[in-house]
Amino acid sequence: MKRVAILGSTGSIGRSALAVVDAHPTRLRVVSLAAGDNASLLAEQVARYRPEVVAMATGEGIDRLRSACGADSPLGIGTVAGTGTAGLVAVATHPSADIVICASAGTAGLEAVLAAIEAGKTIALANKEVLVMAGALVDAAARRRGVAILPVDSEHNAIHQCLHARPRAEVRRIILTASGGPFRDYSADALERVGPDAALQHPTWQMGRKITIDSATLMNKGLEVIEAHWLFGVSADQIDVVIHPQSIVHSLVELIDGSVIAQLGVADMRLPIQYACSYPERWDGSLPSLDLARAGRLEFSDPPLDRFPCLGLAYRALRAGGTLPVVLNAANEIAVSAFLDRKLGFMAIPNVIQKAMDAHTAEAVSTLQVVRRTDQWAREYARDAARELELSV
Amino acid sequence: MKRVAILGSTGSIGRSALAVVDAHPTRLRVVSLAAGDNASLLAEQVARYRPEVVAMATGEGIDRLRSACGADSPLGIGTVAGTGTAGLVAVATHPSADIVICASAGTAGLEAVLAAIEAGKTIALANKEVLVMAGALVDAAARRRGVAILPVDSEHNAIHQCLHARPRAEVRRIILTASGGPFRDYSADALERVGPDAALQHPTWQMGRKITIDSATLMNKGLEVIEAHWLFGVSADQIDVVIHPQSIVHSLVELIDGSVIAQLGVADMRLPIQYACSYPERWDGSLPSLDLARAGRLEFSDPPLDRFPCLGLAYRALRAGGTLPVVLNAANEIAVSAFLDRKLGFMAIPNVIQKAMDAHTAEAVSTLQVVRRTDQWAREYARDAARELELSV
Repeated sequence: MKRVAILGSTGSIGRSALAVVDAHPTRLRVVSLAAGDNASLLAEQVARYRPEVVAMATGEGIDRLRSACGADSPLGIGTVAGTGTAGLVAVATHPSADIVICASAGTAGLEAVLAAIEAGKTIALANKEVLVMAGALVDAAARRRGVAILPVDSEHNAIHQCLHARPRAEVRRIILTASGGPFRDYSADALERVGPDAALQHPTWQMGRKITIDSATLMNKGLEVIEAHWLFGVSADQIDVVIHPQSIVHSLVELIDGSVIAQLGVADMRLPIQYACSYPERWDGSLPSLDLARAGRLEFSDPPLDRFPCLGLAYRALRAGGTLPVVLNAANEIAVSAFLDRKLGFMAIPNVIQKAMDAHTAEAVSTLQVVRRTDQWAREYARDAARELELSV
Repeated sequence: MKRVAILGSTGSIGRSALAVVDAHPTRLRVVSLAAGDNASLLAEQVARYRPEVVAMATGEGIDRLRSACGADSPLGIGTVAGTGTAGLVAVATHPSADIVICASAGTAGLEAVLAAIEAGKTIALANKEVLVMAGALVDAAARRRGVAILPVDSEHNAIHQCLHARPRAEVRRIILTASGGPFRDYSADALERVGPDAALQHPTWQMGRKITIDSATLMNKGLEVIEAHWLFGVSADQIDVVIHPQSIVHSLVELIDGSVIAQLGVADMRLPIQYACSYPERWDGSLPSLDLARAGRLEFSDPPLDRFPCLGLAYRALRAGGTLPVVLNAANEIAVSAFLDRKLGFMAIPNVIQKAMDAHTAEAVSTLQVVRRTDQWAREYARDAARELELSV
């Protein structure tokens, strides 16, 4: 029996994680849950999984949770671990937890992941910003504490499966697949006119809003390139991206003899989540089989770097290293938020990020304070840059 | 330094094996070579690789080899190990050899493979008939002697790479890819009119004549299904075939959680041969990388069992077990030979095989004598059946 903590239990990944728990009631038990502000769904989860502790982003959320639980069920909500970062940390470091599924959106989970590593928990990582911002800190802590970081992102999970027990010296390169998002065949002109409604229609994966926009700009793949560097110890030159609209080949590894190992599957996040939960075993389960003949056709093409500058910006940030990926990530969050609020055009997203990167002098990621300070600076810079671009339209 | 024996050095696989030796002169050395009747090419190989012993199918071949070597080079040809089966056995069991690449065509290699296993050699197996005919004997001997059988067939080599260090209990099924041969889209009527010249044009792999016809009938895939059973300990129900005309995904393994691991690469036999030679290591080398974006499109479809009955016959033989696969294989060799001699139509190949299978009462493959006797019987039966069909046209 593995005891599970979930950061972000009401989000897309969190709900899939609970579906995995449902499929393996004798193998997995939920001991702690943290959610953002969806009190009604967390109340349902509390009633069903009876976690020992819970957390939400705000005290106001906790109040709504209490009233949701009180009205609908005789159950208490367990101990409230706290709110904000303290709540996330308490849920992540709960003494009963063996494995922490880190699926809180954006940068909120960073302290919690570091605390969970210090507490010796196995990390199932779905929050790529954690490694993009603070890969050096997370990597060092995980090595020092001997903690496994198991990727839940389908691409990195695929790489983890392909690398399975192979010596690192046998790896020539990693090939991340990208659906290409809904606009991969759009002209540069058409991309200028893209709005949030179209961008939120992802062709193959059902995901949260922020990551769906990141998929449309290819920034999601850029963040994944940086994530792959930290997870697998490969340089930027050893990480390639190939567009694969069907999202069936989840990623590939080329070995030194030219042989390529790939992981394939249906586009269902329960698969990588279950893999992370079961590792180093594999569990049978109710997950659907892939029917290749029914899929029929798998297509591959080079990424259109000219029309999707975000991917190139991410490679630039990884190659420069230090705090530049923090700037990339923070400016991207601000720009995507402005785009979703219809205050910024689709092609202005990379503009905002590039301006912030150009204005930044990178330093080493030596402490969490450096990360936080850079993150704050980049957000403010990006907000200003976005406003300027908005006014100039 | 691994010392290599090659059975079938002048054939397609044998020449690729020597190209792998060329690429790794400090890792591989040729110590013994056996060829069929291509004395002039064997003479070139003798001059270049200076094997300690050689063998050919006949004494007349050895005479031609001597004159070819004598006329063109001052080198001797080393010790002649013998001719026929005795020559193959002597080459395969040569005391210096660490690994035996078994690439002699058809059924000729069976005794030699069993002798090499008894002598404790690592087996790199490119001759699928060996396992189809005598899988029970080969498997038992390899287990008893603790000898590794490394598949060189690209599909089984792919499966071996995908299974890498995974517990057998985690395997749900094996999926062998098949190019489908040149006629996969032909109607039943068009298949009736196919002749040897068209059948020898394989779309993706350059191979010998017999295996190219087997690819066109899908019997090659049928033999591979039986081979996979013996190599990987999976039942007929756990082995699926999918048509994949591009021959880039060499095969796949579905694990119990629904995840699928695949091996991909360019269609170049040096890759699986080098893998077998380097195993359990991998060697860097001059083998070409796969460019997925350039490949562009990978297609998959269910095998057209109705139009290609050979595949179904192979499943039937595997399920029935015992000597029935011997009959399948022997009758197929006779029928393919008659087809290449323009004495039998393309669609009569499965007819001949089915007649022989229907007439056979299977028994256990308890000894090599049982295999030989069944093989002889099936060949005679198939010859008669082919003649009858020829006369009836």
